[in-house]
Amino acid sequence: MLRASVRADLPVLRTVDGHHAEVPFLLTADMFGGLPIEVAGGDISDKVGKPVAELHRHEVAELYLLVSPSPGGARIEVTVDGATIEASSPSVVHVPAGALHRFVTLEAEPGSCCFGILIAGPLH
Amino acid sequence: MLRASVRADLPVLRTVDGHHAEVPFLLTADMFGGLPIEVAGGDISDKVGKPVAELHRHEVAELYLLVSPSPGGARIEVTVDGATIEASSPSVVHVPAGALHRFVTLEAEPGSCCFGILIAGPLH
Repeated sequence: MLRASVRADLPVLRTVDGHHAEVPFLLTADMFGGLPIEVAGGDISDKVGKPVAELHRHEVAELYLLVSPSPGGARIEVTVDGATIEASSPSVVHVPAGALHRFVTLEAEPGSCCFGILIAGPLH
Repeated sequence: MLRASVRADLPVLRTVDGHHAEVPFLLTADMFGGLPIEVAGGDISDKVGKPVAELHRHEVAELYLLVSPSPGGARIEVTVDGATIEASSPSVVHVPAGALHRFVTLEAEPGSCCFGILIAGPLH
């Protein structure tokens, strides 16, 4: 019989280069026998106009997954290698591996979340 | 210069075996040049006592990522191969590949989400 397992000791707080505070991770690569992704972030309703990081880069691609209770309830501005784009919930923004990036929350109704999904692997 | 790209045509609705309605996907394996995961689901605040699927199984492992604005604001009951466990937000439940499973929402404050992350790859 296969069994479920649970991690309830979340978030895992980690220091990450370029970030102003410890970053809350919900999934890390060492969980459940090894994962191809890591997931950080969460609620952004208190982060309007307050970037959580300076411009920074890493060797893996990142996806920003932006969700909110109502469509359009959250908007973020993402800067990647000097170009800026805006995204409205629900949406996903792909930041290529190695790109200098950060996001700023423009609007976020209660319950809005932005998750950063870090993707391992050669394609990204 | 590396560029960001955005998918705003979300969710992608798909028919999935065992599910009562089309499943809303936020990430699919074909996006952004190929991904090692797929992500489905979202808000569960209207799903207390209403399972979105019958017991079903698939060849890849699944992680249920449960979040809510307040710690403990959402609870789900996950059944895996006949055993039932309960999880409270924030938490992640790992459902092994091939296991017969489903979840039911027990409690969910506004803004609570449960995402199903499907993991490709040999470890899972």
